[in-house]
Amino acid sequence: MTKLLESEGALEMGGEIREVSLIMSDLRGFTAIIAEMDPEDVIIFLNRYLSRMIAILLDHRAVIDEILGDGILAFFGAPEPLEDHPARAVACALSMQAAMDGINAENEADGLPRLAMGIGVNTGSVVVGNIGSERRTKYSVVGSDVNFASRLEAFALAGQVLISAATFSRVSDLVEVDKVLTAEMKGLPGQATLYDVRGISAPYPIRLPDKSEKLKKLPERIGVRIHRLKDKIITDATGRAWVTHLSDTAAQVTSEDALEAWEDLRLAFLDDNQEPTPGHIYGKVTRVTPLKDGRFEVLVSFTSVPAEIYRTFRHDPGPA
Amino acid sequence: MTKLLESEGALEMGGEIREVSLIMSDLRGFTAIIAEMDPEDVIIFLNRYLSRMIAILLDHRAVIDEILGDGILAFFGAPEPLEDHPARAVACALSMQAAMDGINAENEADGLPRLAMGIGVNTGSVVVGNIGSERRTKYSVVGSDVNFASRLEAFALAGQVLISAATFSRVSDLVEVDKVLTAEMKGLPGQATLYDVRGISAPYPIRLPDKSEKLKKLPERIGVRIHRLKDKIITDATGRAWVTHLSDTAAQVTSEDALEAWEDLRLAFLDDNQEPTPGHIYGKVTRVTPLKDGRFEVLVSFTSVPAEIYRTFRHDPGPA
Repeated sequence: MTKLLESEGALEMGGEIREVSLIMSDLRGFTAIIAEMDPEDVIIFLNRYLSRMIAILLDHRAVIDEILGDGILAFFGAPEPLEDHPARAVACALSMQAAMDGINAENEADGLPRLAMGIGVNTGSVVVGNIGSERRTKYSVVGSDVNFASRLEAFALAGQVLISAATFSRVSDLVEVDKVLTAEMKGLPGQATLYDVRGISAPYPIRLPDKSEKLKKLPERIGVRIHRLKDKIITDATGRAWVTHLSDTAAQVTSEDALEAWEDLRLAFLDDNQEPTPGHIYGKVTRVTPLKDGRFEVLVSFTSVPAEIYRTFRHDPGPA
Repeated sequence: MTKLLESEGALEMGGEIREVSLIMSDLRGFTAIIAEMDPEDVIIFLNRYLSRMIAILLDHRAVIDEILGDGILAFFGAPEPLEDHPARAVACALSMQAAMDGINAENEADGLPRLAMGIGVNTGSVVVGNIGSERRTKYSVVGSDVNFASRLEAFALAGQVLISAATFSRVSDLVEVDKVLTAEMKGLPGQATLYDVRGISAPYPIRLPDKSEKLKKLPERIGVRIHRLKDKIITDATGRAWVTHLSDTAAQVTSEDALEAWEDLRLAFLDDNQEPTPGHIYGKVTRVTPLKDGRFEVLVSFTSVPAEIYRTFRHDPGPA
């Protein structure tokens, strides 16, 4: 191998194993949301979000590895050693979530949809080094713990910071955990334990506000057309469904079709003629209960709501 | 929106819709392969591959959007308009595949595993623009056709260039198609048509050599331990299995467990004491036939073979 190292194109090719903490973040349903927007608005909308996130990451001394559309991969603990990289990563992730309210207020003011982000944080040993060639190189991370961070992110709901057991073991005396989840993660045998983190104490104290709120029963149920999203692509409509309870962030739906927990959905309210009204809500199935009549009671947590619809049902949760 | 455009942090934020051709490439099983390697070797190994790919992409006037570990996303047709971006993308993808032989010869000489790459090419309208912030920006693409290119890539076998129907319609008079596949693609309703491309004619002529070769029946079957890879993570071993026929690039296996088409596997040959011999072969299930005795005949196409094993069974396809 020495021959290769000394060759012309080598460019500090050495790699090393380092323990780092990885953040992976992504907007829920972003690809589907922008399909309905002007291209100029897409970039403004995306950059408003990314520029806030980039600033927070750099302020916390993260190395930003990748920005792929609305997804961000960053890490803490290399090349600069940061002994407290797990706490730093968790505090950074919480700050990123906390910034979403401000971003959404601006979006709403501009008539743009509200956005929701999921974040996964994982700690593990990865290979770090300069990846690429002299024509294009970057300092980057490679390894299965990078993939695992991306699994955590995919599992996170709107507003959640999910951290792995490896990260939790390093910050357990600092963090406030909202929920402990055990989940069968795609690609992992058995159950993985995930920690839904609400806050972290000094030296980087931050705490997310409690956003839980009660669903209100509608005076009259509203018909809703539901499409499943599979890997960000919209598939056929499901059977008939009705919204029976509503809040700013979730809907309780009675559905003729069984939906599965964690499925991504696109919802359109139906008018009196059973025609979809303008604007789509995106959400994730967070609970499914079979009813005695063969139908299903489904709780959908919203990931994106068009500004207009949001305003409508915040002030008047009945049918428009 | 104009307010935002004129604000301090705007930085040429305009986006536009452009038709581009996208290339997504990835090594098969790379994360699992490097789990067994020295970190220094990982970077050398990865950069040998990436530097060849980057050179070929830039020579074909691609914009390299992302390098994420061993995966590359690149596009043709923006910002510089390239009228023939579909042909250029297909020629580039074929050149990338053609370069793998040279890379693998070097790997083999250094005692490193052989690598196999899958490539997807898609053509479509995407939003292009400067994505990020003043602190970190790049010219990038966003949209569902980017996601679709990545679906094609995930579907491609070792050595394949799979192009979408949208790309094919633009290059149909130029390309030589090896196989037309209809596949149920993750995330797409119904069947998608994919074209496995072998060659393209002028102005960018290139043709991949025919690598198909006959499986040879072994004088005696060899026990083999099979682990499934799910999303690059190795899971529990399957039931007992034996290699009955072998070539440089594939094995026919009799398995007590049903394996599914397109599953990724890790294989280790067993010695006379049923202990795994050193070195792992990685492969993808490309055919499954149920046998009358309840077992299954499974064809495994190799995606990575350790240099040592490769040398052994190339010259002597019997048990070591």
